[in-house]
Amino acid sequence: MNNNAVLLMHCADNKDVIQLVTQFISKHNGEIIELDQYTDRENNHLFMRVKWNLEQFALQKEGIRDAFEQVVSGQTQLHWKVYFCDKPKRVALFVTKLSHCIYDILQRYQSKEWDIEIPLIISNHEKLRYIAEQFDIPYHVFSITKENKLEQEAKELALLKEANVDFVVLARYMQVLTDDFIAHYPSRIINIHHSSLPAFPGAKPYHSAYKRGVKIIGATSHYVTADLDAGPIIAQDVCRITHTDSVSDLIRKGRDLEKTVLSTAIWQKLQHNILTYKNKTIVFR
Amino acid sequence: MNNNAVLLMHCADNKDVIQLVTQFISKHNGEIIELDQYTDRENNHLFMRVKWNLEQFALQKEGIRDAFEQVVSGQTQLHWKVYFCDKPKRVALFVTKLSHCIYDILQRYQSKEWDIEIPLIISNHEKLRYIAEQFDIPYHVFSITKENKLEQEAKELALLKEANVDFVVLARYMQVLTDDFIAHYPSRIINIHHSSLPAFPGAKPYHSAYKRGVKIIGATSHYVTADLDAGPIIAQDVCRITHTDSVSDLIRKGRDLEKTVLSTAIWQKLQHNILTYKNKTIVFR
Amino acid sequence: MNNNAVLLMHCADNKDVIQLVTQFISKHNGEIIELDQYTDRENNHLFMRVKWNLEQFALQKEGIRDAFEQVVSGQTQLHWKVYFCDKPKRVALFVTKLSHCIYDILQRYQSKEWDIEIPLIISNHEKLRYIAEQFDIPYHVFSITKENKLEQEAKELALLKEANVDFVVLARYMQVLTDDFIAHYPSRIINIHHSSLPAFPGAKPYHSAYKRGVKIIGATSHYVTADLDAGPIIAQDVCRITHTDSVSDLIRKGRDLEKTVLSTAIWQKLQHNILTYKNKTIVFR
Amino acid sequence: MNNNAVLLMHCADNKDVIQLVTQFISKHNGEIIELDQYTDRENNHLFMRVKWNLEQFALQKEGIRDAFEQVVSGQTQLHWKVYFCDKPKRVALFVTKLSHCIYDILQRYQSKEWDIEIPLIISNHEKLRYIAEQFDIPYHVFSITKENKLEQEAKELALLKEANVDFVVLARYMQVLTDDFIAHYPSRIINIHHSSLPAFPGAKPYHSAYKRGVKIIGATSHYVTADLDAGPIIAQDVCRITHTDSVSDLIRKGRDLEKTVLSTAIWQKLQHNILTYKNKTIVFR
Repeated sequence: MNNNAVLLMHCADNKDVIQLVTQFISKHNGEIIELDQYTDRENNHLFMRVKWNLEQFALQKEGIRDAFEQVVSGQTQLHWKVYFCDKPKRVALFVTKLSHCIYDILQRYQSKEWDIEIPLIISNHEKLRYIAEQFDIPYHVFSITKENKLEQEAKELALLKEANVDFVVLARYMQVLTDDFIAHYPSRIINIHHSSLPAFPGAKPYHSAYKRGVKIIGATSHYVTADLDAGPIIAQDVCRITHTDSVSDLIRKGRDLEKTVLSTAIWQKLQHNILTYKNKTIVFR
Repeated sequence: MNNNAVLLMHCADNKDVIQLVTQFISKHNGEIIELDQYTDRENNHLFMRVKWNLEQFALQKEGIRDAFEQVVSGQTQLHWKVYFCDKPKRVALFVTKLSHCIYDILQRYQSKEWDIEIPLIISNHEKLRYIAEQFDIPYHVFSITKENKLEQEAKELALLKEANVDFVVLARYMQVLTDDFIAHYPSRIINIHHSSLPAFPGAKPYHSAYKRGVKIIGATSHYVTADLDAGPIIAQDVCRITHTDSVSDLIRKGRDLEKTVLSTAIWQKLQHNILTYKNKTIVFR
Repeated sequence: MNNNAVLLMHCADNKDVIQLVTQFISKHNGEIIELDQYTDRENNHLFMRVKWNLEQFALQKEGIRDAFEQVVSGQTQLHWKVYFCDKPKRVALFVTKLSHCIYDILQRYQSKEWDIEIPLIISNHEKLRYIAEQFDIPYHVFSITKENKLEQEAKELALLKEANVDFVVLARYMQVLTDDFIAHYPSRIINIHHSSLPAFPGAKPYHSAYKRGVKIIGATSHYVTADLDAGPIIAQDVCRITHTDSVSDLIRKGRDLEKTVLSTAIWQKLQHNILTYKNKTIVFR
Repeated sequence: MNNNAVLLMHCADNKDVIQLVTQFISKHNGEIIELDQYTDRENNHLFMRVKWNLEQFALQKEGIRDAFEQVVSGQTQLHWKVYFCDKPKRVALFVTKLSHCIYDILQRYQSKEWDIEIPLIISNHEKLRYIAEQFDIPYHVFSITKENKLEQEAKELALLKEANVDFVVLARYMQVLTDDFIAHYPSRIINIHHSSLPAFPGAKPYHSAYKRGVKIIGATSHYVTADLDAGPIIAQDVCRITHTDSVSDLIRKGRDLEKTVLSTAIWQKLQHNILTYKNKTIVFR
């Protein structure tokens, strides 16, 4: 943890806003560490991320957002958020039966690669309870049927609120969430899909990839939206396969992609590197 | 060029066929240089490629196929071909307006990286004639309309036959060939498509990739079949993109993939490394 | 586990040996599933891997090696081994303080991705004992000093013998083994080095990579030999870095390479895919 | 070509400089299109690239540098350059006998992928003159011996000055330049080396890679400095190889890396994306 602030901002293109932001930080004796700005010339839209050190910043943390609001109040179509890096993010994990992603995440948590808290793991199966116990994390099972889904999700949402989670990670969670659930965590539910989206959405992508005879398979991490496997893509990776790889080889090789891609997306989220705009992500750095 | 033979073979799985093939070569004093065999356990189908040296082979080249036919005549569902590596393959190029793939191919041809002959280049535009002239290769233009396509293709086919081409390469040729044309060169027309098929088939894949916000783009080389962009995939490659890449950046980066992937596919074809089975390729090595 | 046998063989190039091997298997009613043969034309040396099914094989497992010995007894400079796939391999892990590789391995073990047994974990530190306890595996600590190294290694070797391990994996074990120790497990100790060997051997490769300003970092898995970081390379992988990556970013990104590359090497070993020859590996498939 | 300016700047870290730069542009009604800033926390050094549109900029192009000098005149250890994007860069190519890199470059030049001028090609051999003639570019041959090197380089330098070249590309030029020659074009001579530096510097890297048994080969583009193959690295790429690849396969596969990596480095140079600092590059974007 460190004493930095991160501003994520996007707005209709204009000539003053970068200057206003840097002046604001400079004036209050903040030291900019990273500034990344990009203008989408097609949509005339400006995206910006600034990270600055607060050690000698003249404003108290509590006052920064109000002060900044005044700076940009005259700008049109401007959206911004300021994040502070002084507290571990609280992350909830959803799992079903596969352990590769959850172990990968828990190793990073345990070794302090990531400075996060994991207040709970939610599953629709008992199978992975032993992992939660290995790491001493509460494990809640909600078995899901067509009939009880809304009811079970309500309980899950209650737990998430109570645990005050910053975002949710679906670590090969094998249930489709309802639109209502998703609406509670916009751009805050990260999923891993086991294909190079938009190829092979939905169920059994490795079987489809095998059938089509592709020479490269992939994995995609994205924010969950109401459209299945169609949310903004955060990270993707691929690996080569050959005719000698059976479906089970694809599944085996794909697991290595899935865990790395999901962890990459979580890392980007933890760094406050991600903006979403028009169902796409801007991932700074 | 060298004095080798290559056998490509596939058949319903059986216990004797590998032994029969190696015995045939050994008995006639051939030296096996590469043998690669693979059994698809799901379909119980066996695939095999053997390359052997003919220098001290007891059979004359002309007699090899007949002799081999007798060896495997008792086997069911067996398909095989024997290729000789003593003559340059004859390759026809089809192009439209983009020069990156054709230059890439011609550089390999000119520098003898590939031992091929290019008896002709066919186009539906005049634009690239200067390249054919740079390399002193006949350039034939057949402008294509809905009305004249069959007629023009008939003329193209006549030229290809006359030139005795082994296979055809569509080096960003921007016309869809008719089923009839394709039927003349089964598994002998190689196309390059500018996406990671099956994602983004058809026109303007880079625009679609941009719109979807993918983080990886690709290119796919495949045999042309009657189904557009759905033929057996020979080679694929990808590269990473970011939010800073506009559509024109995708097009620019994609060109590097297209030329490399197309040339990889041609190389595999020239080495007799490719078998097709059930709309998929087996690419040995 | 399955009822297959794998033959790994290499010899001075000759015209009969492939035929002899396939005839041997065919004659006894074995079904070849995979055959991969390659001749190094520079050294005139032949390498071969054959996997066949034993279900209807006429020979008892116990008699196969003797029978095969007779088949190839006339051949010069021929080395071979036959492996059976009916029992889990027994693997010993050596670790120090870093947990990413060991968790990656244990997840594959626990989930049955790999059919192995891990009879013991050896370390020179107490730090990772909790992981061994999570997975209920004996954990032995031997702290190493210049003075006690031979003595401690003798105890380690005794444990390894007693546990009847097939091979040893150094999962970021931070001690150099003596030549004597290594000699007990030739081509049976797999190490992971955190650079693209031969670049940056020895200590602190990420610091060296940072200092040199490379744009790509890597990891290398190799067999341990008496020459530090100079043994036969089994697997390598890389990832891109930029000027924004500090040394600690390199270390973080490198960990993902290390665990994947090490696990890839172990997988190849488990499949009996690896031959070594002149300080290089032949990795079939 | 477009009416943009690019500022590349680096300085000892300070709190005001970013604000000063953005204020300067904003005040004169310039529109920032891309701003990328990064602080190296280890060296407390700040790097920055800003690209802005000059269409409505209040200052004339001729006056920009003077005006900017006044803005940053009070800052210590600050280095900056402003580039204008309104004229094609003039690039000289040096070649010897291999044609893959030069064709790759000339295709991009001819197709206007790059907006450059190539006033001359210099070689120590006649062999590639036909390519220069295909593209109608003057081709100068200076055969190099130990005795005549300084003299010949003097003639080459005279030609480069006369042609007013912006930078020099060594497209597999097989001569080592003298320190004196290099000193005339600091950070303006781009070389391609056929290995993943720092592995395998010097001659015959593919032979060394083969001998070491690496599983991945690479290519590296770097600025030429007085230390052979030790200059700041601009771009690198790699591809996988296997035991079946002979030295000539490595050379063949490596060529595809060499041309892509060299062209990537040239592209970055053309975009004014590259800063050098302490023998390393900062490549923005």
